[in-house]
Amino acid sequence: MTIKPLADRVVIKMVEAEETTKSGIILTGAAKEKPQVAEVIAVGPGGLVDGKEVKMYVAVGNKVLTSKYSGTEVKVDGCEYVIVRQSDILAVVD
Amino acid sequence: MTIKPLADRVVIKMVEAEETTKSGIILTGAAKEKPQVAEVIAVGPGGLVDGKEVKMYVAVGNKVLTSKYSGTEVKVDGCEYVIVRQSDILAVVD
Amino acid sequence: MTIKPLADRVVIKMVEAEETTKSGIILTGAAKEKPQVAEVIAVGPGGLVDGKEVKMYVAVGNKVLTSKYSGTEVKVDGCEYVIVRQSDILAVVD
Amino acid sequence: MTIKPLADRVVIKMVEAEETTKSGIILTGAAKEKPQVAEVIAVGPGGLVDGKEVKMYVAVGNKVLTSKYSGTEVKVDGCEYVIVRQSDILAVVD
Amino acid sequence: MTIKPLADRVVIKMVEAEETTKSGIILTGAAKEKPQVAEVIAVGPGGLVDGKEVKMYVAVGNKVLTSKYSGTEVKVDGCEYVIVRQSDILAVVD
Amino acid sequence: MTIKPLADRVVIKMVEAEETTKSGIILTGAAKEKPQVAEVIAVGPGGLVDGKEVKMYVAVGNKVLTSKYSGTEVKVDGCEYVIVRQSDILAVVD
Amino acid sequence: MTIKPLADRVVIKMVEAEETTKSGIILTGAAKEKPQVAEVIAVGPGGLVDGKEVKMYVAVGNKVLTSKYSGTEVKVDGCEYVIVRQSDILAVVD
Repeated sequence: MTIKPLADRVVIKMVEAEETTKSGIILTGAAKEKPQVAEVIAVGPGGLVDGKEVKMYVAVGNKVLTSKYSGTEVKVDGCEYVIVRQSDILAVVD
Repeated sequence: MTIKPLADRVVIKMVEAEETTKSGIILTGAAKEKPQVAEVIAVGPGGLVDGKEVKMYVAVGNKVLTSKYSGTEVKVDGCEYVIVRQSDILAVVD
Repeated sequence: MTIKPLADRVVIKMVEAEETTKSGIILTGAAKEKPQVAEVIAVGPGGLVDGKEVKMYVAVGNKVLTSKYSGTEVKVDGCEYVIVRQSDILAVVD
Repeated sequence: MTIKPLADRVVIKMVEAEETTKSGIILTGAAKEKPQVAEVIAVGPGGLVDGKEVKMYVAVGNKVLTSKYSGTEVKVDGCEYVIVRQSDILAVVD
Repeated sequence: MTIKPLADRVVIKMVEAEETTKSGIILTGAAKEKPQVAEVIAVGPGGLVDGKEVKMYVAVGNKVLTSKYSGTEVKVDGCEYVIVRQSDILAVVD
Repeated sequence: MTIKPLADRVVIKMVEAEETTKSGIILTGAAKEKPQVAEVIAVGPGGLVDGKEVKMYVAVGNKVLTSKYSGTEVKVDGCEYVIVRQSDILAVVD
Repeated sequence: MTIKPLADRVVIKMVEAEETTKSGIILTGAAKEKPQVAEVIAVGPGGLVDGKEVKMYVAVGNKVLTSKYSGTEVKVDGCEYVIVRQSDILAVVD
């Protein structure tokens, strides 16, 4: 079963805390907006979103920084994903 | 009796929890926004919505992920439906 | 006495609960937004509304689904009407 | 002394409750937005309002339905008026 | 010392209550928005304001109706003025 | 050390209360928005701000009226400044 | 490990309080919005952001003034960064 996001939406999978530590990325927890590192699983087609042309810059496999409180959590085939808009993705990390 | 949604609206029918489990999709319940899997029943014509051209990407029969709190619930001929805007649909699942 | 709505406004008349049941449409009552079936009584001319071109898609006599909390209630010649914007009308039912 | 409204503003004079009843228009009082019947006294020139072209559709002498809570009350030469934007006028009644 | 308002701003001077009564204008006091009669002292140049072309319609010496809660009060050379945006001016009175 | 404001921002330095009185400008203190006289220290380049062309009208040395609660206070080399957007500047005083 | 910000985002590193004092910049602490001096670490590509063309004006190495409450804090390889939008940067200091 696959998830095909619409418009400017991106399906991401949060990277586990252990893995995060190993890769040297530790995210501080702010009261109002907790940042998150995640892997991109699926990318929407972009195009006209709310009347504005949106081009997608992230690609499947990218590690991205986003905010915990953006997006909607879903669980498909036992895996938890989050669906965010590309504009909620802050940065790509290498 | 049929429902013909206007503009960028889409009529969806929530998929039962049992069926959801069988198909392997389990949705986590967040306090503020509970995601939902649903089947598309009817699709509006799109066109100019709030002065912006909207093209419809979902089709009747699609299984979609949306948010429980978007849209308006209606009951027609004994069946419960939800009318959402296409922009409230997060993804199509196969 | 007649009501001629301005711009993108539509005059609707709520269909009685009894009639609603007979026609097979039962609307669920959500706490925050109760949907309603109504008949279109008069339709504004559309045109430029807030600087955006609006085309009217509903016609007098249409049965429509809308939300109870949109619009303004008026009583003319002993009949109660609601004046809504076309964008508050969710769907036409046949 | 005359009032010349600017832009898309319209000066209206509320029709007395007695007169309202006589003419067969009774307005229901909702808690949050009480509708009102009023007579148009003066109409602004329209034109560019907030960067958007506005054409005036109401004329002096029109009986209009509006909402009690829109607009600003003024008293000129002993008469009470309300100044509303044309977009706050719901409908013209004949 | 002179005040030269920027953009679409207008410097006005509230007309005293006594003078107001003499000229036959009495303004009702609403709880949330108290209207005011004032004289225009200086007018900004208009032009591009927030990306939209604004043309100035009021002139120095005009008596205008505005709302007490719009604008910012200043005191220059012992006189109290209010600086409002032209869009906060409701009407010109003759 | 110099401050070069970005976009439509302007660095201003509040004029001391004593000096204010001497120059005949006394600003009334409203509960919600206290106006301020200030001197312009640095002016941003203008240009495209939030997708809209902004032209800068204030110049270094101008005495301006603004609102105390707009902008962000900074202290550079022992001097306190405020960084505001040009649109928060109400007027230039001579 | 590097952070590549998307769109109009900028990665900044807060300058320590001690260093701040040495360089002569002392930032006052307002209750609602505490300003901050920071160094630019990485700059996004700009381009179309929310349908508007954004050009990037800050460069890696710039010392900038921003507001403490804008942006999202992240910790990469033991260093704390903040990711802000360029429009949250008030000024460049030399």
